[in-house]
Amino acid sequence: MKPLRVVVWGENTHEHKNAAVAAIYPQGMHAAIAAGVRDLLPSAEVSTATLQEPDHGLTAERLAKTDVLTWWGHMAHDQVDEKIVDRVQQRVLEGMGLIVLHSAHYAKIFRRLMGTTCSLRWREAGERERLWVCNPGHPIARGLDRYFELPHEEMYGEPFAIPAPDEQVFISWFEGGEVFRSGCCWHRGNGKVFYFRPGHETYPTYFDPNVRRVIANAVEWARPQGQWAGVDQSPNEKVPPEPLGRSQ
Amino acid sequence: MKPLRVVVWGENTHEHKNAAVAAIYPQGMHAAIAAGVRDLLPSAEVSTATLQEPDHGLTAERLAKTDVLTWWGHMAHDQVDEKIVDRVQQRVLEGMGLIVLHSAHYAKIFRRLMGTTCSLRWREAGERERLWVCNPGHPIARGLDRYFELPHEEMYGEPFAIPAPDEQVFISWFEGGEVFRSGCCWHRGNGKVFYFRPGHETYPTYFDPNVRRVIANAVEWARPQGQWAGVDQSPNEKVPPEPLGRSQ
Amino acid sequence: MKPLRVVVWGENTHEHKNAAVAAIYPQGMHAAIAAGVRDLLPSAEVSTATLQEPDHGLTAERLAKTDVLTWWGHMAHDQVDEKIVDRVQQRVLEGMGLIVLHSAHYAKIFRRLMGTTCSLRWREAGERERLWVCNPGHPIARGLDRYFELPHEEMYGEPFAIPAPDEQVFISWFEGGEVFRSGCCWHRGNGKVFYFRPGHETYPTYFDPNVRRVIANAVEWARPQGQWAGVDQSPNEKVPPEPLGRSQ
Amino acid sequence: MKPLRVVVWGENTHEHKNAAVAAIYPQGMHAAIAAGVRDLLPSAEVSTATLQEPDHGLTAERLAKTDVLTWWGHMAHDQVDEKIVDRVQQRVLEGMGLIVLHSAHYAKIFRRLMGTTCSLRWREAGERERLWVCNPGHPIARGLDRYFELPHEEMYGEPFAIPAPDEQVFISWFEGGEVFRSGCCWHRGNGKVFYFRPGHETYPTYFDPNVRRVIANAVEWARPQGQWAGVDQSPNEKVPPEPLGRSQ
Repeated sequence: MKPLRVVVWGENTHEHKNAAVAAIYPQGMHAAIAAGVRDLLPSAEVSTATLQEPDHGLTAERLAKTDVLTWWGHMAHDQVDEKIVDRVQQRVLEGMGLIVLHSAHYAKIFRRLMGTTCSLRWREAGERERLWVCNPGHPIARGLDRYFELPHEEMYGEPFAIPAPDEQVFISWFEGGEVFRSGCCWHRGNGKVFYFRPGHETYPTYFDPNVRRVIANAVEWARPQGQWAGVDQSPNEKVPPEPLGRSQ
Repeated sequence: MKPLRVVVWGENTHEHKNAAVAAIYPQGMHAAIAAGVRDLLPSAEVSTATLQEPDHGLTAERLAKTDVLTWWGHMAHDQVDEKIVDRVQQRVLEGMGLIVLHSAHYAKIFRRLMGTTCSLRWREAGERERLWVCNPGHPIARGLDRYFELPHEEMYGEPFAIPAPDEQVFISWFEGGEVFRSGCCWHRGNGKVFYFRPGHETYPTYFDPNVRRVIANAVEWARPQGQWAGVDQSPNEKVPPEPLGRSQ
Repeated sequence: MKPLRVVVWGENTHEHKNAAVAAIYPQGMHAAIAAGVRDLLPSAEVSTATLQEPDHGLTAERLAKTDVLTWWGHMAHDQVDEKIVDRVQQRVLEGMGLIVLHSAHYAKIFRRLMGTTCSLRWREAGERERLWVCNPGHPIARGLDRYFELPHEEMYGEPFAIPAPDEQVFISWFEGGEVFRSGCCWHRGNGKVFYFRPGHETYPTYFDPNVRRVIANAVEWARPQGQWAGVDQSPNEKVPPEPLGRSQ
Repeated sequence: MKPLRVVVWGENTHEHKNAAVAAIYPQGMHAAIAAGVRDLLPSAEVSTATLQEPDHGLTAERLAKTDVLTWWGHMAHDQVDEKIVDRVQQRVLEGMGLIVLHSAHYAKIFRRLMGTTCSLRWREAGERERLWVCNPGHPIARGLDRYFELPHEEMYGEPFAIPAPDEQVFISWFEGGEVFRSGCCWHRGNGKVFYFRPGHETYPTYFDPNVRRVIANAVEWARPQGQWAGVDQSPNEKVPPEPLGRSQ
């Protein structure tokens, strides 16, 4: 099997504006996420891209060679160029996997693929989150116990304004009393999409071994198994397979 | 609109074997559930049926005139005759609504319609359950706040071995640290199925105003909107609509 | 039950540029569609709106009082203001029904709600279409036989680039040898969406009794059963239901 | 990656009662199906099992070592022991793939997993079938053109009484005027299920290169990616993760 080509996209903003975030993620959050994937999937070719690069680091050429894209964004969703969103959407529909992380529930690309607002309730109180596995045999849950915990995270609560997931992998319990569909799978066109909740910028969540395990598992799960070429085309079929007018 | 014809089915066993249950539900759990539906849907024609009646109270004639059936069972799932399960299943596929309550996750009819084991984790510790609404506009959530609580309930925890719900209406948070998909909708054939978690026999859950509201809302939601006659038939269409052999 | 408030939206362009279309639909296609709904749902309040009106006839005030919106468009999809699309999308997510007709598979609002390109194959050859009913008890198929035919229609063929429908009501057989998922249901937020294939502008499809029956049935099926207020809001829940830090 | 262990199950009845079937499939239909899989997936370990063997060839030990099971049956569905159906169902829920072929739409195991009657319309007239690809990038459609034909097949027509498929891979057009959802994917528990329509016993369908391609692709697609152990167990969790009674 060919090496999996993974691009870890990071908004790369909080790291430069908030000393606390920079202290946790001195190389940027994307670097930590990429390190986790590299560590667990040593045969994968993992690179990073950020908002600040030309084309946000996502040229058509690069996306054409990307198997799975992970996406973390928060304060700068609006700065993502609609043309790049178009490009990423088309690649997902063709078959590229997309892993949407935490506050990227509000990323243009995720809202675009879901068709809904993807709104939710939230609270920054550093509370405990426990993620329960809804399908212990699912490839994204491989290697996990029946639940795992993060000692300090932002809370996300229902209602989460998404279409019904094709598969539910995790649901979170929060110390403060809320619940959340924290690991959700969908198909869009020929691509697989996974939303994974944890990852607030002020906590070292992307160093957590279980979180890293989930992201690596999801990257493998989302590997393309084919390509839908021309998913944006509506061809005019001038000649029908059958002769017309035969039974009239 | 014609009056809704509702049958509330009860296993009617714990009430006769456990004094604590009998004290809470002196007329049987089914009587309490039926009273709640009657109270909130005064125009509905609500009756009850129990395991002990001939045909478990579910003759073909009666089912043919039933719009929505609610089902509570627990210790005597095995005593439900397979022929009655066949009959109920056929009516659901034709269009009858089915509301599956609490321990009926293991009822033959629910497992039959889901195709899965419907297993889950559980604990009887009288702990607090909080049910969160995942879609505040859903007809089954009508009249509820963003969540409601039950002070003492049995815990049910994930993984809940069900096919992915078509719609998720409630997810429960438990005091002891678990979560559960506690309100789930599916279509099977032409019928609507709703699973609703609360209702352990040793607590007065079916007198709770929010629980009664949910059950009444679900009964209305599951109202048949048509009938798929012959859903169990595979007719031989001897004469095709189009002449054969034309293009050969 | 309150009268259903229906708005029939028409692009209203072909009727003014193509004499053949104007001859079939002298009052516009939207007028014919609206007449069909009025005829079959006499208690409904049916009005029309067109692209050329201010706000395309879809002010926030009007949409707030609309239960179900039907949408036909083709050559002028690009002229539909993104802000109006935002507004319609929000109302669907809140609970308004949306019936998407024929070439509106490429309407901005449909693509927005699906998250996919909604591309397909097509051919204008005036060929025969036969629409098969996949669920004879479904409310949208009420009053139909097991299939119905249109003598002359544009062909639409698979692959239709949509997410898997929640319910499949019709599949079309074409004389020229193609098939198409021609009646598809989805939930998006609290709203119901139905796509219905027939309706090319050069044929009198919207005078066909079966087509009118399907549209009227779909309008009734899509009736809102509640409203998800604030579906676009992500509230900050500063005070948790449970005290934090208890178990640390 | 470990070799895929495939068991091709055949009812093995028509071959012994109908000389025409025996002439086409002298070694049995299962042998032809297995030969196709072996040819296209040379690294797979492919064996066959039939109704007539003890345990129908499906002992617990063998199923435990089976990754994907294909199933063809027709006249003897009733002779399949319920205990073997239980066993196969459990293995699917744990993660084993299941490929259901043609008349096995009425096999106990398929009806069990779907929860519906799986009824349909049919006609034996040796008519032409054209199978259209609904997702050209889907792994099950790998290597196919946009459609392929079988010159003579039994017709299956809608309505097909199944739950809405998670993914639609093929829809068939029939010469006689019908349509059918002929390639459908579902998840049940941790297992993948694919239904594939063609394969009437009186035609050499299982020698057709496209049909063989689809079956081999489906076998690969259905490969388990993990195991849900204990999917039939409902454990009593006596000790909760959180202390109870804290906030009372």
